Amino acid sequence: MCGVGRRLEPTRSSMNRRSCALVVVGNEILSGKIQDSNAFFAARELRAAGVALERIVVVPDELDAIADEVRGCAARCDFVVTSGGVGPTHDDLTLEGVGRAFGRKLILNQELAALINEHSSGRSNPARLKMAEIPEGAILNHASELWFPTVQLENVYILPGVPQLFEPKLRMIAERYRSDPFFIRVIYTSATESIIAAYLNDCMARFPELMLGSYPKFDDADYRVKLTLESKDRDYLARAFDYLVGLLPREAVLRTQ
Amino acid sequence: MCGVGRRLEPTRSSMNRRSCALVVVGNEILSGKIQDSNAFFAARELRAAGVALERIVVVPDELDAIADEVRGCAARCDFVVTSGGVGPTHDDLTLEGVGRAFGRKLILNQELAALINEHSSGRSNPARLKMAEIPEGAILNHASELWFPTVQLENVYILPGVPQLFEPKLRMIAERYRSDPFFIRVIYTSATESIIAAYLNDCMARFPELMLGSYPKFDDADYRVKLTLESKDRDYLARAFDYLVGLLPREAVLRTQ
Repeated sequence: MCGVGRRLEPTRSSMNRRSCALVVVGNEILSGKIQDSNAFFAARELRAAGVALERIVVVPDELDAIADEVRGCAARCDFVVTSGGVGPTHDDLTLEGVGRAFGRKLILNQELAALINEHSSGRSNPARLKMAEIPEGAILNHASELWFPTVQLENVYILPGVPQLFEPKLRMIAERYRSDPFFIRVIYTSATESIIAAYLNDCMARFPELMLGSYPKFDDADYRVKLTLESKDRDYLARAFDYLVGLLPREAVLRTQ
Repeated sequence: MCGVGRRLEPTRSSMNRRSCALVVVGNEILSGKIQDSNAFFAARELRAAGVALERIVVVPDELDAIADEVRGCAARCDFVVTSGGVGPTHDDLTLEGVGRAFGRKLILNQELAALINEHSSGRSNPARLKMAEIPEGAILNHASELWFPTVQLENVYILPGVPQLFEPKLRMIAERYRSDPFFIRVIYTSATESIIAAYLNDCMARFPELMLGSYPKFDDADYRVKLTLESKDRDYLARAFDYLVGLLPREAVLRTQ
């Protein structure tokens, strides 16, 4: 859960750390009709911006499911991004669900209604105007190349699920929360995880704030395990990297990055 | 959240309905280092087996994050599948996390320890034997082609994250929970969502138990919106399909499946 990352994450006040949760709304993903790509995109963009993505959740097109998840994430993370469920049809419930998370009703936003009318070439109708009904107290963010602004309620940003629309909006939000970068070093080993586990434990005992990942490879790669070492503190990372490389059997270290 | 699917899902007792949640454990996914493929695989396999996947969650390698999520999902769904975090290193915390969800400690399972020794070619060590420490009361399922059994605690199945291992084990579990199939019909339309929204609302008012999805296409496809109609009741689906096709402007229906 967001904010619980104390065991492996740096917690020093000098390291500016922002946390985020992503709530993906959509029966089409839960039923396997389409493969979501927004979570992977968001994970990479947020990481590159120094933001810690703490949780990804896919919930069905259900008001209470959306509201419960958004309420929990908004309380624990610096900000929340939702993906999907913002169109004009019966199964587009994210705006109402996010409103419910904060006890807010939907009201027609005149600025958004005018924008929708302007971009409808005279074809506006009640269904299109449903997209102008946003939770009371929500604000509009215009900072992207798209004409449709991003609706924000408290620390929750409500994004469309279509990747062509989600991606530029997510980039704008990641930029807004940009903080100190994560630094990373990588060690590729020819030894198995069970051989090196004791060295990793030793390293974690000495550098408890290091983010240390161990990823065995089961395909044809030329290594057995990829170790990733990360920190927002470049010096701390350098010391941990040197310490771990010194621990590992020399012949087990294939290469480092 | 699991079990909330009343609005769109069939709830008749004659329709056998099983619900599942998937908990993916892994910092490497949250930090964008790798793209998870197990969720999409599980979504398709479970759907094909008639099981409703109600929730997908990605949590970090943190004991309390794993325990809290598993506890909530296990209470609300018929069963839970976890993916990842079951190796021999410091960041493999899923067995302990699932145990904590039910207030169970890890204990060495002698059967599993013997299996690991047998498959270690004499190279077993404390790190490998860590994988034989499973929550008290957990049972071993041997029904897959892999020598390593699937650990089950209560209604939670603990699967490895490596797709080559996850997939055959997931298939075995989907088969165990196989229930009445979901039937599906598809309508491709040339009209936009805002044009057809009123017809969809009409159809949902008449067939409240229909699962009706509306998916606009923003790329070069030859249609504007794909409508999916689903039910476990084949006759109910047929009536809803005929009703909606009858509502839609004839020229808007490009083709059906």
